[in-house]
Amino acid sequence: MSDPFTYRDAGVDLERADALKERLARIVQSTRTPEVAAAFGSFGGRFRLPAGGELVATADGVGTKVLVAARAGRHDTVGQDLVNHCVNDALCEGALPLFFLDYLACGRLDPEVVEAVVSGVARGCRANGAALLGGETAEMPGVYRPGEYDLAGFLVGRVEYHRVAGREVAAGDRLLALPSNGLHTNGYSFARSLVFDRLGLAPESPWPGAEASVAEVLLRVHLSYLEPLREGCGAGWVRALAHITGGGIPGNVRRILPPDLDAVVDVGSWEWGPVFGLLARESGAAPEELYRILNMGVGMIAVTRPREANLLRESLAAAGCAAFPCGELRPGSGRVRLEGRSA
Amino acid sequence: MSDPFTYRDAGVDLERADALKERLARIVQSTRTPEVAAAFGSFGGRFRLPAGGELVATADGVGTKVLVAARAGRHDTVGQDLVNHCVNDALCEGALPLFFLDYLACGRLDPEVVEAVVSGVARGCRANGAALLGGETAEMPGVYRPGEYDLAGFLVGRVEYHRVAGREVAAGDRLLALPSNGLHTNGYSFARSLVFDRLGLAPESPWPGAEASVAEVLLRVHLSYLEPLREGCGAGWVRALAHITGGGIPGNVRRILPPDLDAVVDVGSWEWGPVFGLLARESGAAPEELYRILNMGVGMIAVTRPREANLLRESLAAAGCAAFPCGELRPGSGRVRLEGRSA
Repeated sequence: MSDPFTYRDAGVDLERADALKERLARIVQSTRTPEVAAAFGSFGGRFRLPAGGELVATADGVGTKVLVAARAGRHDTVGQDLVNHCVNDALCEGALPLFFLDYLACGRLDPEVVEAVVSGVARGCRANGAALLGGETAEMPGVYRPGEYDLAGFLVGRVEYHRVAGREVAAGDRLLALPSNGLHTNGYSFARSLVFDRLGLAPESPWPGAEASVAEVLLRVHLSYLEPLREGCGAGWVRALAHITGGGIPGNVRRILPPDLDAVVDVGSWEWGPVFGLLARESGAAPEELYRILNMGVGMIAVTRPREANLLRESLAAAGCAAFPCGELRPGSGRVRLEGRSA
Repeated sequence: MSDPFTYRDAGVDLERADALKERLARIVQSTRTPEVAAAFGSFGGRFRLPAGGELVATADGVGTKVLVAARAGRHDTVGQDLVNHCVNDALCEGALPLFFLDYLACGRLDPEVVEAVVSGVARGCRANGAALLGGETAEMPGVYRPGEYDLAGFLVGRVEYHRVAGREVAAGDRLLALPSNGLHTNGYSFARSLVFDRLGLAPESPWPGAEASVAEVLLRVHLSYLEPLREGCGAGWVRALAHITGGGIPGNVRRILPPDLDAVVDVGSWEWGPVFGLLARESGAAPEELYRILNMGVGMIAVTRPREANLLRESLAAAGCAAFPCGELRPGSGRVRLEGRSA
């Protein structure tokens, strides 16, 4: 018989996993809400539902933003990206967050990295009032390269904003654009290839035209629009919401259109700025292509009645979100039309 | 200016993704239950909850079983593995499945593969009465190698078996072992290294001592114990359940023990058989190590009062599950003690 072959030889270290579990328990505990009924480390998370109603569940990842995090060695933000992404999606369904679960898979469990990632998840949960109810951390040698990982998340919420959930939109309704602070979590394969491979920039290089490094720009945390939109949703001023993620403005605004209306978006109503401007300029891609890959500066589009547009805009401004009019709904056939000239 | 740089150049093909989405919608539709309130393709899945109660949520992956699937070119079973894994976890919390979401990430979207994987997920959902409420399919060039992918899932259920959830176990309670049909979803990094790298076997090689190929043995679908346990849980004969996954019998039975009881498991009460026997023999690993890495033939352990043990065992047998006594609870300190001699 040859030498014993152990789990550690196969690249999996159970002792390290056990030690990590205790650290994670404390992080998860920090997100506990009164409804959480069972402790971390059990087979599943339990959540008391005080009454009936409708739940919303959404699953997401952060795409290859994880590779930027790995390359920059900064792991404490992608978790918050992930939660905020899910929170925005649930909000488009009229739901407030109840609980969240994460899945983190890596080639080799580096406890410092895992703790940083889950800390980001927990920070996002706390900021949005979600309990981190459970999750899975998987060590998968052979799937993930050393130092790299993937992260996915799952949010369950309950419908509280029935008008948002109902999406009763009409011709003449106004579109309000809520600015993004960067790429959020979409278009990273495009941006990485361009910035790192084609332009030869490094994470610590200055982003041309911006007072920030490439890593700082690319790792800016995906904004959660829950707090800025809370008053407007509660007051009924928001008729529908489109979270601008993969597929961009055309791909996502289309999801909230009835078959007899078009959304006309005036892309001349905002400027791309140094981040999207660089990606547009250096890629040479056509604007139609860019608007499908990237959010191009708009992270969420809200639909509002004309008479409520100013109320909504002011409530957003009061919460620090400089929303601006970007178009309207018109009789049509369920299409998104980009008009005007991008700057 | 140089040539246009497109998303496709970066390795992401949006057209292919759109085409795939339509195919997935039909698969998801097949799992729809009356409670599902919103359609596939929206921002989140919605689920009507008829009354209050307690929800259970659990997240899991299938580990490097995905690499075996990729190597064998058989992609329609890992999804069912994943659902069954989550269903068993939720059952340990006394919950029946409500809905499921999946996360599938790959380097390049191969629609045939994605459809096969999601078909497996949907089959698992239907078999367990869960709605596939949503999910995310991510194309992440640079993270996953061509032909490889990772798969994670999230299940939400509601507590229906309050006695199972309560875990009121006592000294003298009997342990009943429910056989596994193979590795289920744990220990694959260990098994792969051993079988493929150290023994040099191929997916189509016969598994020594078994009338099946290596791929057939390693891809056997993780059993769901929901149907076999339904009568026993409903009748109150099950006091606690431990799903034997990562950490094996010691790591998982420990989770259901109060601090003043030990679980004494007689490992001589069953045989390893050709699958676990080969892994044990060829690895040369100590039994204590093997019992932490692999389920070694036991996929679930149920705790039952002595007077109800036969009723439970008979109800399991009637449902096709040949459960057998494997130990008992004794006064102690929350430890799992493996006694007897493995065969």
